[in-house]
Amino acid sequence: MTIRTTLSLMLGMTLCFSSVSMASQPLAEANMLAATKQTNQVQVQVSSVSDTTVSSAPSTAPQATNSDTASSKDSSTPIVAPITNIPNKKAKQTSGPAKPKNMIIMIGDGMGPAYTTAYRYFKDNPETQEIEQTVFDRLLVGMSSTYPAPVSGYVTDSAASATALATGFKTYNGAIAVDENKRPLTTIMEMAKKRGLSTGVAVSSQVNHATPAAFLAHNEHRRNYVEIAEDYFNSDADVILGGGQKYFSEALLKQFTDKGYQHITEFAQLDSITEPKVLGLFADVQLPWVIDDKQGHKLSTLTQKALDLLSQNEQGFVLMVEGSLIDWAGHSNDIATAMGEMDEFANAIEVVEQFVRERQDTLMVVTADHNTGGLSIGANNEYAWEPAILHQITASPEMISKALIATDEWQKRFNELIGFEATDEEIAKLSAARMQGQKQLFTTILSVIDLRTNTGWTSLGHTADDVQVFAAGPGAILFSGHQDNIDIATKMMSLLPKAAR
Amino acid sequence: MTIRTTLSLMLGMTLCFSSVSMASQPLAEANMLAATKQTNQVQVQVSSVSDTTVSSAPSTAPQATNSDTASSKDSSTPIVAPITNIPNKKAKQTSGPAKPKNMIIMIGDGMGPAYTTAYRYFKDNPETQEIEQTVFDRLLVGMSSTYPAPVSGYVTDSAASATALATGFKTYNGAIAVDENKRPLTTIMEMAKKRGLSTGVAVSSQVNHATPAAFLAHNEHRRNYVEIAEDYFNSDADVILGGGQKYFSEALLKQFTDKGYQHITEFAQLDSITEPKVLGLFADVQLPWVIDDKQGHKLSTLTQKALDLLSQNEQGFVLMVEGSLIDWAGHSNDIATAMGEMDEFANAIEVVEQFVRERQDTLMVVTADHNTGGLSIGANNEYAWEPAILHQITASPEMISKALIATDEWQKRFNELIGFEATDEEIAKLSAARMQGQKQLFTTILSVIDLRTNTGWTSLGHTADDVQVFAAGPGAILFSGHQDNIDIATKMMSLLPKAAR
Repeated sequence: MTIRTTLSLMLGMTLCFSSVSMASQPLAEANMLAATKQTNQVQVQVSSVSDTTVSSAPSTAPQATNSDTASSKDSSTPIVAPITNIPNKKAKQTSGPAKPKNMIIMIGDGMGPAYTTAYRYFKDNPETQEIEQTVFDRLLVGMSSTYPAPVSGYVTDSAASATALATGFKTYNGAIAVDENKRPLTTIMEMAKKRGLSTGVAVSSQVNHATPAAFLAHNEHRRNYVEIAEDYFNSDADVILGGGQKYFSEALLKQFTDKGYQHITEFAQLDSITEPKVLGLFADVQLPWVIDDKQGHKLSTLTQKALDLLSQNEQGFVLMVEGSLIDWAGHSNDIATAMGEMDEFANAIEVVEQFVRERQDTLMVVTADHNTGGLSIGANNEYAWEPAILHQITASPEMISKALIATDEWQKRFNELIGFEATDEEIAKLSAARMQGQKQLFTTILSVIDLRTNTGWTSLGHTADDVQVFAAGPGAILFSGHQDNIDIATKMMSLLPKAAR
Repeated sequence: MTIRTTLSLMLGMTLCFSSVSMASQPLAEANMLAATKQTNQVQVQVSSVSDTTVSSAPSTAPQATNSDTASSKDSSTPIVAPITNIPNKKAKQTSGPAKPKNMIIMIGDGMGPAYTTAYRYFKDNPETQEIEQTVFDRLLVGMSSTYPAPVSGYVTDSAASATALATGFKTYNGAIAVDENKRPLTTIMEMAKKRGLSTGVAVSSQVNHATPAAFLAHNEHRRNYVEIAEDYFNSDADVILGGGQKYFSEALLKQFTDKGYQHITEFAQLDSITEPKVLGLFADVQLPWVIDDKQGHKLSTLTQKALDLLSQNEQGFVLMVEGSLIDWAGHSNDIATAMGEMDEFANAIEVVEQFVRERQDTLMVVTADHNTGGLSIGANNEYAWEPAILHQITASPEMISKALIATDEWQKRFNELIGFEATDEEIAKLSAARMQGQKQLFTTILSVIDLRTNTGWTSLGHTADDVQVFAAGPGAILFSGHQDNIDIATKMMSLLPKAAR
């Protein structure tokens, strides 16, 4: 693994081109070519970058360039792409800052490449001849490896991967922003705070689940939910939105409100929140599955509110948004629920995309922490995937299984909720499963859906498959091509404003 | 699906930015920014491209730019990146042509994203702390969707996908460079021939298997191997290297040699071939599995020979190289054999990468036609993948199963060939399988390896998962971000020299 000094991370000044894939270097070079028309100072950097292309191994290219030197002195001299990849005629070639003022990292938990492909075909309009592009297609720039520290092998958990994305360091599975020796690692949120930026998280799990936890806390294990919640008080984060009421004691909540936090528990209360700080806990643990949620659009609503509140800071902000429950659905091997969660994560991405497009001063980076379930689009030796029936399913298989246990007229109820008429063979399977209880019935409903859609899974856990990287806004070009998850963190850190001396 | 006119394809003049993902457009824009310093003509094109960014749907952005207009008049004015993504100090910013003289498309058959990730960890040196980058990491620029024409659903076969990559059109599964009405579609090889370029294929399957067939023949079905072989005579291809002796009759071979083709059947004869044309058929059907092949490096040897021969044409060439047997191993769900085939495909890519680096006039594009087997790196609810034992396996599971059937001392032989000592439980499974015959024994050996490595599969067929795109050389930037497989063809076609009037 690439070894970087804590010092360079703390300074946050190092544009580490060494781990930008070679494939993307000519693009950076081309952009810099444009920049060389204006200053000699930048030209020196072009040479530096060109030299590093001789070596491709991340550990052997120490000639990092100092982005602050060039870009903070003359904001009209673009050292990174002066444009977003969102259409905006005004932004074309010459305007826009070299560095973003605001940064948003969005994590689709467990969202390996099969999920975004599946989502495209799930969203395909059967009325048209073409297959419509998704927001993921529009924003794709590269991919990322996700392996944890060697002690945990090649397959990461959410804690180690979130730690990589939040701190730029590999660690063991289960670690929350601590290294292999359980020492705290500085997070991008802490760096942002030190430089006067606001910070926040908006997630669909409990707010103190592994991924947001690695951005706002330090703990030797992700399961220490109460300790992590308590540590959130120290984060000084301006916006904390998601689920997790059960982990915040009355005493802890009083600490938060005494410090000036507005504590809310209902979505209806969001309108009354017009400025930070806010601790919004809208569920005991996680938010409801999107497929079961008649109110809908919870994550995108939270994301919009976070943007509204955080953007009040003229110094800028760093926001982490997580589509947390994609992973949870993947762990259940539940394609119907997963597509619902994907849809809402896509909605949240579009909220951020709109913000980026309108402002031209904000970088968005979207990725996944790992792949969950070994999902494949097509299975069982058949060349087919049939997502159409997923649109007819009106409740999560989990909720359907509970409903069917509760009624004797379960066959009729099944057909209503699942949106298709079960065959005799399916009824027989469901009937046998129902006699074994709700859990077995749940699993059997999933298998009926998998067979109808021809969906494949290999695990109830994670896999090591690389994930995708999507980006837009100033600095987006840095995320092109292949990279490792720690590189995503260090690149974002390099784009923070210069530390005060 | 995007509809493009045959006319524009035939002219090969259309740089179709409409289907370059929005994410990659600013990069093109930035490159063009550099170009705008020099000609007004190019500046007009920048506006055109910027305008198309307002719409992201491939079918709604007709404002294509004409790359020939700008770049053929002044080769020092780069309309696409004047640099490769291979390190070469000489190539830096100002040299290199706007268009490549030569183009090489390399197809890893069935090589979905899990294969390239698996290959990285398979190649990881356990003696070092870091995880070494592969050639795939170095060259990654984007991804591609692979769906066939609507009649075949979302999951493509090799024929439809190769047709997309060779012609720029979607078709039905099984089609060899013909449309849904079985009418021939013009291939990039035919377009190249008309413009005076040489063409060739180098593959590890029979030369007339689906993927190369779609580049050199037209047929309503991939299984018509003899007809396809006969049609190769009409292709006038300068280099045809791979397996497939059984499909070429004496009469057909005489036609080839009468036309001036050198016909060879042994690798040792390759040295004697110093100029085109050559028809080299080195196996009855496919080449041996790499893992069983003590001679080794067959595909990279064929690739190097193809480059040597084709580059004798001063007009340039188009070469298709296929790592054909990655897919075949995937169909068997055979991770050990698949990693051997991946390794040799990577070797062939490195041969081409070296050629691209040395010459600066050649574009290489590497992709897959689809994903095979639903491979996942990790399975069975365990957070682990253990590729180490794969390096100790000295023969393909297919060959091992045959060897074990042929001897009574099969347990000892198994341990020798597999490279580890089987447990009692494994021996019991293998013993029971051996009594059912070679095929069952083969499957059981695979399951032993899968359990030891914790490898997952969901199908003996294909899946719809997007695949990766890798590129280097002039024009490589066009392949950044998300695209569809037909876009890969039309982008490459747009880089061919202008047709004679």
